Order: sequence, then structure tokens, then C-alpha cells
Amino acid sequence: MIKFRNDYLKSFITEAEIAAIQPEITTAHNTLHNRTGPGNDFTGWLDLPKGMEAQLERIAQVGQRIAGLCDTLIVIGVGGSYLGARAALEFIRGKNYNAFAEGTPTVHFVGTDLCPDTIVDLLNLCRDKSVCLCVVSKSGGTTEPAVAFRIFRQFMEEKYGAAATERIYTITDEKNGSLRALTTQRGYTSFVIPGDVGGRFSVLSPVGLLPLAAAGVDIKAIIGGAQAAKADFADASIQNNDCYRYAAARNILYRRGLTTEIMAFYDPSLAMFAEWWKQLFGESEGKGGQGIFPASVCFTTDLHSLGQYVQDGKRNLFETVLSVTQPFTDIAVPHEGGGDGLDFLSGKSLHHINTTAMEATAEAHVGGGVPNIILEVGKRDAYHLGYAAYFFQLACGVSAYTLGVNPFDQPGVEEYKKAMFRLLGKPE
Amino acid sequence: MIKFRNDYLKSFITEAEIAAIQPEITTAHNTLHNRTGPGNDFTGWLDLPKGMEAQLERIAQVGQRIAGLCDTLIVIGVGGSYLGARAALEFIRGKNYNAFAEGTPTVHFVGTDLCPDTIVDLLNLCRDKSVCLCVVSKSGGTTEPAVAFRIFRQFMEEKYGAAATERIYTITDEKNGSLRALTTQRGYTSFVIPGDVGGRFSVLSPVGLLPLAAAGVDIKAIIGGAQAAKADFADASIQNNDCYRYAAARNILYRRGLTTEIMAFYDPSLAMFAEWWKQLFGESEGKGGQGIFPASVCFTTDLHSLGQYVQDGKRNLFETVLSVTQPFTDIAVPHEGGGDGLDFLSGKSLHHINTTAMEATAEAHVGGGVPNIILEVGKRDAYHLGYAAYFFQLACGVSAYTLGVNPFDQPGVEEYKKAMFRLLGKPE
Repeated sequence: MIKFRNDYLKSFITEAEIAAIQPEITTAHNTLHNRTGPGNDFTGWLDLPKGMEAQLERIAQVGQRIAGLCDTLIVIGVGGSYLGARAALEFIRGKNYNAFAEGTPTVHFVGTDLCPDTIVDLLNLCRDKSVCLCVVSKSGGTTEPAVAFRIFRQFMEEKYGAAATERIYTITDEKNGSLRALTTQRGYTSFVIPGDVGGRFSVLSPVGLLPLAAAGVDIKAIIGGAQAAKADFADASIQNNDCYRYAAARNILYRRGLTTEIMAFYDPSLAMFAEWWKQLFGESEGKGGQGIFPASVCFTTDLHSLGQYVQDGKRNLFETVLSVTQPFTDIAVPHEGGGDGLDFLSGKSLHHINTTAMEATAEAHVGGGVPNIILEVGKRDAYHLGYAAYFFQLACGVSAYTLGVNPFDQPGVEEYKKAMFRLLGKPE
Repeated sequence: MIKFRNDYLKSFITEAEIAAIQPEITTAHNTLHNRTGPGNDFTGWLDLPKGMEAQLERIAQVGQRIAGLCDTLIVIGVGGSYLGARAALEFIRGKNYNAFAEGTPTVHFVGTDLCPDTIVDLLNLCRDKSVCLCVVSKSGGTTEPAVAFRIFRQFMEEKYGAAATERIYTITDEKNGSLRALTTQRGYTSFVIPGDVGGRFSVLSPVGLLPLAAAGVDIKAIIGGAQAAKADFADASIQNNDCYRYAAARNILYRRGLTTEIMAFYDPSLAMFAEWWKQLFGESEGKGGQGIFPASVCFTTDLHSLGQYVQDGKRNLFETVLSVTQPFTDIAVPHEGGGDGLDFLSGKSLHHINTTAMEATAEAHVGGGVPNIILEVGKRDAYHLGYAAYFFQLACGVSAYTLGVNPFDQPGVEEYKKAMFRLLGKPE
């Protein structure tokens, strides 16, 4: 469950304002669900929670096979072919997953950039490991993953010879593109990225689920969470729909000139989830000279960095706080008569102190004129990851239609590619 | 050296505009160097490059002692007591330093947040290691590091008994505060945070240098780089001063309504340097309802995420690209007749492709209406880290005075602390 808390927002937005935007939210809801809006051929993600059920068994089995074959899983992909899996892995298992992985492979992401160090370091790390590859790319033609795959394919073939084939898994388009062609030619085990699901909406497809299954995550629970979210937010009435309440609030704030939204979280294991969120909203809404700029902060860390700006800088921003109510682990501040000035915290749990810091910060930032939306997530587990993924995808679709843009294209991403291919001499 | 490149900026800012702001920059320069402005009792960082020379030998020796004593160094600190050391370590040694550290200890940062997992994971990681602590806090009273230090002090005393004393190092105020009192009482080896140097300007003091020395970094080269930067930017004339050209350009753009500055970099090992930069500028300028909001992106990764927004979203932003001209490592795209569509890149070095992506992106974003400032740094090494730290600190001081704010206070940071201490029942 995700609960929308109004207590640090109500001094900025009245219920009348929420009611006034209801017709626009209803229109956006209908446009999305009736598939009548721009980009409607990329709304397959709406049905993924139900649609994935038939595939879950096979994904789980292949995930287990990967876990049995290797101690090191390299996932090659960029953007939506990378962020969802990484965000989910850290959300569910924690950001230090690799340090504590036992019985399941460590997971390393590459093909995410063009920096030589990224590749060189990972090659060095893998020399003495037992490795599998999972390559995620709709077309196979995106430069970063294609370069990484060429290098690691060679690495695998040198290391394993013909047996490399059973250690390489691909997730790509059903029919088209160079990665599908390579898959067929070499006989790799493969999964399909549905044609009507865009990259940033693909975490609930094999794109997210196969790497997670290999890491031992309960992918049925993920899909269960997504199904629950779909059911919970089926009603377009904002009164009954915390997801649409979020979409409505951010549109109201944006129209007032609050053009930057900061996702704040108090658990570093949510950092990659915030990165996933930044792609989801930034790429969906940032077009035609419009859109809310998505930023993120890890509190309390960044209270000692960007906190000053948020409290007292230019007033063109609002915060969305992703707060996890149940701790993943906990520890108490030990008793000590050491004169360190901390005795008022002795015996208190760190999770309690952290949660108190969250409430105090919301109160302070509201006092500084920054609206705070609090989204409470029950727990950092597979179920809530699925729930949260669907929550934000749905909020994004409705929010972008309310803003008046196509949520499902990304025309601006082509510009630098055109210039790059020209400078690199790519044949037409 | 850092070179300010004008080629993706000149279509936005004329030389006449630069000349017009010269009097303000000159005034800011004089205010800073004559120490006549608000916050002038925190301008000690101006002289650190020269002032640190006398201490370098002792810092290097103690760093070596730490490296000899332990395989795992835990650095406890938050904000300016943390970001500088971490940014510098990753800048100089790469973000995967811990995976490849040989002969020098791995370095872990804690006391940076209040999430229980951070502490619990690190305790688990340290059980079988040989550990030293380096505790950085001016007062000792900041909650995050104070809590972490209480927990890890207990851990060390249980593990090492009386010998814990020689494994704990503190960096704190010369005379005041609970950490100085604990240091005296227990007999820890200690260094002084100069009273006239604020946290975000402290990386060139023992705060940054001791952890770096323990990790085997050449701290004399860092200070050498800072000294060179100080000499290079002594002249207030923008024509001869790339540092002030940067300060001038960002003020000109801000006055035009470009209120978000995105630091972009193409090497993931600069991510923490960008975090350091965000604190430096955000905390120095974000006050009184003013200031440029500092954000960062790791390209090409985030071209597949925030790239769409930057290319085509709301036009209230500009980019500052930190580009490293010499690669740290390199690797060529291997030849292969594999039909992956990449043959036009066969044999090309990844650094070349990455640099081409940078130029192409700047060209594309300029086409989308986003001014691009390119700052070229020669190399990711100790000398250039020192140079870059001084460059940005100086740019920040001059820029903030030009903006009309005190660069050296952070009044807004107290607000959430007040609320938190009230909610936690801290005695007055």
C-alpha cells in the first residue's frame, strides 16, 4: 500500500482546488484507459500485472538456472532496460546486496555509459568468477549496451568457448533488431519485451523480472503488488485514489510556478528507485518546453548539503517524500556515560530517530514555504516494489495527460544520437 | 589546469555581457580577498594551500600508520566532513576503489544518515576485518556522526579493548566541543579543523587529507594543485581568469531566469565530486529566496533518463560539463563480424567515443536552447583534484558575493534540527 499524506500539503492546496482539477484528472484517466490519447500504442504496461502471470513460472525457472550457473551476473542495458531492475534490486535487497549475496549471484550493471573504466573494472572483477550475461535492449542498436555486449560476448567466448551460449540470456523485441537476430543465430535463451511497453514502463516485464529472479527475489510477490495497486486505483475520483491525488497535487503546484520536484527519501537503498522515478517522470513530461524537473535527495545526508537551499533558496520547488514505515533492519543507540551529549537518544531505535527526522524536516520545509507530499510505503519488499512501480507509472500517465503532453514518446533523446553518429561516421 | 570552453556558450552570452559584469566580479574579488564581506571570518580556506604545507608531513605519516594498522578504514562524518574526502577518493582512485584496494585499506563512510541499515551492514562487514576509525566533526554534536561514533566506539572497544585508542583518529575543533573533550579524555591522535574554515570548504584541510593519505593518495600533489589554482586565478580580470569566467557566466544566466544548473560528467567516478559541488554551491548560494538550484547528471547514462527533459523540457536550466581530457584507463571496441551493427566503431577507443558523445550532446542541447559551459580538467589525479577543489571554492565565493549573499553561512540548516530535537525531547 502507498498512503498519500496531506498534512504537510494542506496549507498550500485546498480541497476546493483538488475538486476543481477533478474533471481534468477524469479526462486523463479515460484517455489513458480507453487508449485514445497520443502514444496509446505504448500503454501495454497497464495490463502487465495480469498479463505477466502466464510467464512468471518460466522467468522464475530461468532465474534459478542462472543462479545455479554463476556467482556473478552481468546485466547489460541502459535507461529503462537497466534502471527498473537495479532500482527494484536495491529496494528489495538493499543497496549493499552484492556485499551480502549468499546462494544467489552478485549483480553488476554495465552498458550504462561509455566510460572505459566501467568496462575495464568489471572485466578485472570477472576474471576469476563464474559469469552469466543478461542483455536487455529492445533493438540491440543502442550504443552503450551494444558496445558492452560486444566486449563481454568476446570475454565469455574466450572464457567458456561453445558453453558461453548457455550463459547468455537476452531480453529483446520479439522479431526485430540486431539483438533478436544475434539471439536466433547463436541460440541464446531469450525473453520478449512486449511491443507496446516502453523502456521506462518495463520493470514489471521480463526486463525487470529476470535479473530479479536470478537474484532470488520473489517475482510473484512483485506482480501481486502491482495487481493490488491496479485494483486500488481503478476509480478516477481523487477522493478515493491516492495515486491520482499525487498526480493532481503536482499539476496544481506546477501551475503555480513550482517547476522542480524533489523526491526525498531517508533510506539510501531508495536512491536507485528515485533514479527510476526521475527517468519515468522526466522523460514522460519534459517536452515541448514544459514539465516538472525531477531531482532527488537522500536525507538526512543531503540535509547537510542541499538542505539549506530547500529551506531557504529560490521558492520554485516542492518535495515528494517517499517514506518507508516499517524498518528493514533496526538498531538502538547504546547507553554510555561518555559525555558525547547524546544521552537523550540512549536506547532509542535508529528507525524511530530517522522517522522523527523526516517529520521534523517536513515541518521545517513547510515553514520555509516548500509544499511536502508524503507518500508512505509499508515496507521495502517485493510486494511493495510492485505496488510502487505501478503507482508511479499510473500517476505518470495521468499526470502527463493532465499536463497536456504525450507521456509515451521521447523525441528529444534522438538529437544527441544524430550528432554523435555523424561525428563518429556511422553509415546511414 | 581547468580550461573554460566558450564554444557552446557564446551563442547565449556575448563578450559585451561578460565585460558588463566585470565591475561586479572585481568588487566580489576584492570583498573576498580583503575579507570585508559578510562571513569573512570563514575565509581561511583561501590560504589553505600554503597553510597546509607545514602539516603535510605529519598527516602523511599518520595516514601511513593507519594504512599499516588496518585493512578497513571507517570515516565518520556528514556534509562537509564527509563529501570532500569521498569526492576526492573517487576522483583520484575511481569509484571502484574498494574493489581494487591493495596495500591500502578499503574506505567506508558512515555517520552520513540515520538509516539503521547503513550501520548494521557496516557492522556486519567489519566483524572479521582489522579496523580503524577516523571521526570528523567540528563540534562532535551533529546527530548522524555522533550516533555512528557511539556505536562504532563501542564496537572498537569490544573488539580491541584498550588498544582501540590507537585505532581511533579524530579531526575536530582545536579546543571546543564534545569530540575535542572525548579526544583529550581518551587520548586519541587528533588533527584540527581550522576555526576559520567551514565544512564545505574543508577538503584541503586534514578533513579531506587524512583519509586520503591513509588510502595512499599523494596529498602533497593535492596541495600542489591547489597552490597552482590559487596562483592562476589571482587576477580579477575575467579575460585572464577562467574561474571568474565561470562565476560570471552563471550569474548572467541566472539573471535571465535560468535557475537550475546541471553539472554533467561522462565518468561515473565524478559522481561524488558533483555531490561535493552541489553542497558547495547550494549551501553557499541558496538563501534569502535566491540561488541557483544545483543538480547533476551522469552522462551518457542519464541521456537515457533526464536527457529528454534537458533537450526539450522547461527552459530554465543550463549545464556545466566537467570533462576529463585524458582517460584514466581505456579499451578499444573489438573487431567482430557479428552483425550487431557496430562495425563503424570497431577499433575505436572508448574514451574517444565517450568524448565524441560529450561534444555531440553539447551541440544537441545548445540546439535545444540550453547553454553549455564546458570545464576541461586535464586528468583524474591528485594534482587536478586539488586544482579543481580550489577552482570551485573560489568560483563559489566570488559567485555568491556577486549574487549578493553571504557565501559562508547556512542559517536554514538549523530549522529541521530545532524541530527534530524538540520531537526527540533533547534537553535545552
